[in-house]
Amino acid sequence: MTTRIDGRSADQLRTVRLTRGWLDHAEGSVLVEFGKTRVLCAASVTEGVPRWRKGSGLGWVTAEYAMLPRSTNTRSDRESVKGRIGGRTHEISRLIGRSLRGIIDTAALGENTLVIDCDVLQADGGTRTAAITGAYLALHDAVEWMRAQKLLASEKVLTDSVSAISVGVVDGVPLLDLCYEEDVRAETDMNVVMTGDGRFIEVQGTAEGAPFDRQELDSLLALAGAGCKELTDLQNAALVG
Amino acid sequence: MTTRIDGRSADQLRTVRLTRGWLDHAEGSVLVEFGKTRVLCAASVTEGVPRWRKGSGLGWVTAEYAMLPRSTNTRSDRESVKGRIGGRTHEISRLIGRSLRGIIDTAALGENTLVIDCDVLQADGGTRTAAITGAYLALHDAVEWMRAQKLLASEKVLTDSVSAISVGVVDGVPLLDLCYEEDVRAETDMNVVMTGDGRFIEVQGTAEGAPFDRQELDSLLALAGAGCKELTDLQNAALVG
Amino acid sequence: MTTRIDGRSADQLRTVRLTRGWLDHAEGSVLVEFGKTRVLCAASVTEGVPRWRKGSGLGWVTAEYAMLPRSTNTRSDRESVKGRIGGRTHEISRLIGRSLRGIIDTAALGENTLVIDCDVLQADGGTRTAAITGAYLALHDAVEWMRAQKLLASEKVLTDSVSAISVGVVDGVPLLDLCYEEDVRAETDMNVVMTGDGRFIEVQGTAEGAPFDRQELDSLLALAGAGCKELTDLQNAALVG
Amino acid sequence: MTTRIDGRSADQLRTVRLTRGWLDHAEGSVLVEFGKTRVLCAASVTEGVPRWRKGSGLGWVTAEYAMLPRSTNTRSDRESVKGRIGGRTHEISRLIGRSLRGIIDTAALGENTLVIDCDVLQADGGTRTAAITGAYLALHDAVEWMRAQKLLASEKVLTDSVSAISVGVVDGVPLLDLCYEEDVRAETDMNVVMTGDGRFIEVQGTAEGAPFDRQELDSLLALAGAGCKELTDLQNAALVG
Amino acid sequence: MTTRIDGRSADQLRTVRLTRGWLDHAEGSVLVEFGKTRVLCAASVTEGVPRWRKGSGLGWVTAEYAMLPRSTNTRSDRESVKGRIGGRTHEISRLIGRSLRGIIDTAALGENTLVIDCDVLQADGGTRTAAITGAYLALHDAVEWMRAQKLLASEKVLTDSVSAISVGVVDGVPLLDLCYEEDVRAETDMNVVMTGDGRFIEVQGTAEGAPFDRQELDSLLALAGAGCKELTDLQNAALVG
Amino acid sequence: MTTRIDGRSADQLRTVRLTRGWLDHAEGSVLVEFGKTRVLCAASVTEGVPRWRKGSGLGWVTAEYAMLPRSTNTRSDRESVKGRIGGRTHEISRLIGRSLRGIIDTAALGENTLVIDCDVLQADGGTRTAAITGAYLALHDAVEWMRAQKLLASEKVLTDSVSAISVGVVDGVPLLDLCYEEDVRAETDMNVVMTGDGRFIEVQGTAEGAPFDRQELDSLLALAGAGCKELTDLQNAALVG
Repeated sequence: MTTRIDGRSADQLRTVRLTRGWLDHAEGSVLVEFGKTRVLCAASVTEGVPRWRKGSGLGWVTAEYAMLPRSTNTRSDRESVKGRIGGRTHEISRLIGRSLRGIIDTAALGENTLVIDCDVLQADGGTRTAAITGAYLALHDAVEWMRAQKLLASEKVLTDSVSAISVGVVDGVPLLDLCYEEDVRAETDMNVVMTGDGRFIEVQGTAEGAPFDRQELDSLLALAGAGCKELTDLQNAALVG
Repeated sequence: MTTRIDGRSADQLRTVRLTRGWLDHAEGSVLVEFGKTRVLCAASVTEGVPRWRKGSGLGWVTAEYAMLPRSTNTRSDRESVKGRIGGRTHEISRLIGRSLRGIIDTAALGENTLVIDCDVLQADGGTRTAAITGAYLALHDAVEWMRAQKLLASEKVLTDSVSAISVGVVDGVPLLDLCYEEDVRAETDMNVVMTGDGRFIEVQGTAEGAPFDRQELDSLLALAGAGCKELTDLQNAALVG
Repeated sequence: MTTRIDGRSADQLRTVRLTRGWLDHAEGSVLVEFGKTRVLCAASVTEGVPRWRKGSGLGWVTAEYAMLPRSTNTRSDRESVKGRIGGRTHEISRLIGRSLRGIIDTAALGENTLVIDCDVLQADGGTRTAAITGAYLALHDAVEWMRAQKLLASEKVLTDSVSAISVGVVDGVPLLDLCYEEDVRAETDMNVVMTGDGRFIEVQGTAEGAPFDRQELDSLLALAGAGCKELTDLQNAALVG
Repeated sequence: MTTRIDGRSADQLRTVRLTRGWLDHAEGSVLVEFGKTRVLCAASVTEGVPRWRKGSGLGWVTAEYAMLPRSTNTRSDRESVKGRIGGRTHEISRLIGRSLRGIIDTAALGENTLVIDCDVLQADGGTRTAAITGAYLALHDAVEWMRAQKLLASEKVLTDSVSAISVGVVDGVPLLDLCYEEDVRAETDMNVVMTGDGRFIEVQGTAEGAPFDRQELDSLLALAGAGCKELTDLQNAALVG
Repeated sequence: MTTRIDGRSADQLRTVRLTRGWLDHAEGSVLVEFGKTRVLCAASVTEGVPRWRKGSGLGWVTAEYAMLPRSTNTRSDRESVKGRIGGRTHEISRLIGRSLRGIIDTAALGENTLVIDCDVLQADGGTRTAAITGAYLALHDAVEWMRAQKLLASEKVLTDSVSAISVGVVDGVPLLDLCYEEDVRAETDMNVVMTGDGRFIEVQGTAEGAPFDRQELDSLLALAGAGCKELTDLQNAALVG
Repeated sequence: MTTRIDGRSADQLRTVRLTRGWLDHAEGSVLVEFGKTRVLCAASVTEGVPRWRKGSGLGWVTAEYAMLPRSTNTRSDRESVKGRIGGRTHEISRLIGRSLRGIIDTAALGENTLVIDCDVLQADGGTRTAAITGAYLALHDAVEWMRAQKLLASEKVLTDSVSAISVGVVDGVPLLDLCYEEDVRAETDMNVVMTGDGRFIEVQGTAEGAPFDRQELDSLLALAGAGCKELTDLQNAALVG
């Protein structure tokens, strides 16, 4: 039987830590850790919505993802210094935003905007899935803050929870929650975003090496489903604790 | 039984046209049409590879996607005028590049670069899948040009063909090859990139409205599989014709 | 007697094709071809005018010119990727805008804006003159669209037609409508924009090699006058056809 | 007989002042004044040429034009603050560069670059023509500096002098050297760049209002010819003085 | 006793020239010279204030500093061409703005904005201190212009004058008003901004080489105090003259 | 006697925490906390130096400062999204870099570069002084890492330690280590950077309200001197612990 670099079994998550209230100013904030991957999620509530949404009576939820220059093994240049945001950053920011919008009733927000900033303090694979998993809790706490401030248009805002996990095929074996070293070697790489009740919000599978067939796809989806279920439990525990 | 806006059945492609050699200068070029969607794909061969790949003996394939300002119903501002490339453009350019790299042996290219420009002249939904489907033919022709110029490091360059199609659930019904109006109304939207032999290079499913379950995912994948098969046949016909 | 690269006589235009209605969405659109030079002109009508013109009761006409990266012999980087628009692009966009404003009564437009996008799909010299010649027809059709929509403030909008042609001295011989190869070798290069009734809107002559004298200037102006007359006839034919 | 705003006759230049050596560091520098228009021209010699010209044995001459924010009647934003250079700035920089390249033998420069910066300290119409007229002298002095430094590849560098003047039709009357107020009201506006021996380097005529006919063009060219002749004399006097 | 490069004594200013009204359009303008350092200061009055200050009843004063590309010994690239403003430019612009705001009662301005542009025409050390010293006079004259136009909300606008000087330790000796060559060699470099009545608005001391102790700091402050006193006298003389 | 918002005495630091090794990848890293102000300092070692320093045999030390968008009370836009770095960010990055260069012998580094990233996770005043104080420890640890890797050109690299503190006059009382609320109300604001042996590297005093006199300056310097001494002790303790 395969053992992984860090001794995990194929279907085992890394140690997940979800620290709510890590910041003093933000309406919701979570430091989420998937092993060495560490992402700071901060939810900000602001009055009003983007221009194209004005007068709709609907709120808006958006996300911005970024990596600190030395979150990675070797330092990367800042996007602010380069003066432009890279394609990967754009792509992940959009993914996080869509994932959160999948479980929120924007009518209940009234014409308010929630921005969730996900800043990667340390990266070791799975930063986007950690970000989504943490962002949900930050969003949750910001919604509760809005409730306390009587800013909500109706009671029921979040329709479910959301979490995300990466899965991939490494040396022919499907693995859950890839760390950086595994991610680099994966033939197929998939990120799956699921609701607490086990439905999909986003499925993104990519053949990094050879194309993959239906059977591989199925085994990866199964692995991801079990992983997201575990994450949902951890999220619920964090909300209680 | 449902009929669609344009009279198609649920599993029917729009009229697909693949015009090779639409440009005089490019090493490979194709005007691809999926109904009213019209994308000009141009493949350019240049000596050398990006800095990070130098000395590897491997070639490189990349793609750039863009929309003309009036390809859409209402005019959009140019990204060159705005001075920055939007997230959607980045995302699609990266998708096309990955799709093409999935079926090419970069060692056979030697240290040469192939850039495939996909410019949307008119948009009516499915621009990214049309782009991939057309880009394959432009890439093919550019490889043949390299062969004629004796620029290839080995005979076998393309390991398969590649095509792509969008599928989605509209009013609860899974549909193939969404036009713009359908795309806007879709609850779930999926783009599937497949090789000629029916394996996956990329699967990107997004819940635009409610989350989707496993059964919907399966029916969309089946629909896409049949669509890509048809596109493969059309590509093969275009190569013969 | 001199024969040119492509067999034309010194005062002969390349084959000109003017295809109206090439796009489905735009209020006016023309694919214009001067030989291998192929420019897609799309006219967009939008309500309102730029801020500095508000309250004047006058409309506005502006143009944007750009080249697809592989319109040229060797691929050029996209200006959107570079993040800035080059001097040549700026210069030609401004020239097209001025040329069109020279034959339109902006009061008749009401406070509406017409943007004419001129995208070069393939370049073989004379892209700016082809663009102006095609843009006139796209503008014409967009004005007719406005008329049908009852958006015009008065009946008479266009005061004349406009066309443009390049002329130049190659190996001491004045030539009409230079193709790329001739353009590169020209000692003097001139672009002339004229109204249908034979007056000038713009004259831009540049000594690329040695300075030119008054006699050369006169012979180039005569050549251009005859060329624009022919283009005017072709435009009129396209409007009838 | 018409008298102009500032009392000049139709064919009269404003008071022209050409102060050589206005700066201590630059290899050549001139403060040029056409009435209230005041442009500082500085020529810088640097070793080497742009990449695309390397190994050609030829030098390069280029120019950059800019306006100080309060050179104009009302303050304009800085292009450095806006983060992009406007079309007009680009256009004029390119015109000055072409004008200077028209009278220099770049082979004689060896692989060295001359940059001529033309910064408008105060603007009252005709800034581009003043800039060209002053830039010639700054270029001349920088060439002499190169000669003294034994940097020239051959003796004869400048093939002629160059100057420029604006002409225009105001209230139906052709006028020489328009000041700002006249420029705004001109129906036709033309900038003419000429060599010392009376040939053309650049002719740029634009109909600001109604199109112009051949007769108007001829009278403007005559007026400009006489103006440039006078400027040539003043340049020669400045070189002697 | 030490003599300096240019023969000055340690506590001696360079020749200072303050030429008011150097420009015709600006509401206030000064050409300030500290030896070869030459800065053009132009004050512009505009109605209204930045958005964040609207409705406060207070005016706003801001400054923009920039260097012409050939103000320096070797040419620098334009920040407009680079598309971004460097850190040093930002820092000095902010310093000048703060210095001027230190002596003005913004309530007296009403909701109007004063922009002071400080463009370095020639640089030989001390450009920021020359800029502040000249900017005060330009500001003064713009305030007088506002008074004449009855734009002021109250009589007393300027609470004092302001001037600035650089001091530094070179070869162990504290020197006043460093020229470029001294500045490069200075171990400690300090810029001091003072009011006419001898109080501090800004003190910026930097160890360029070894850290400095309290005694050095004291002697530099004393030197600067005497220098600013002299500059205040020269400013007063310029206002009378 | 005055008590401060948070109960401190006038000359009392906030609780300072210095956590070394907060990151796994960086050669040196420190989470520094001054009360609620929390800055993550990461030191990266890279081979080589900037172009202008090549061949000098000297190393280079530089710093980049940035704030997370929700480090502040209300969310700020990302500089990467705005596409440009603000003046304040530039200014502080430069200050940190100079401060660190003041205590390092760049010859001992060989031609290697140390970049210290200081990212503000939470801001409550004094972010730049916390950053400098933490950056010193990150720099120290990176130098030790270089020593272990035998990358140093000589043994003695750091000539002293460096720390920084803010001081200011609030309601006429000089206070040490201002929190945000005090900083906003301060009449005079000063940042002082000192070496472990009590000398100055940087003194930056600014009159936010009324100008300050010599006596105020002296009392602020005394307060800062005592504060930096305490910080030095804490840094030393952190290095031992």
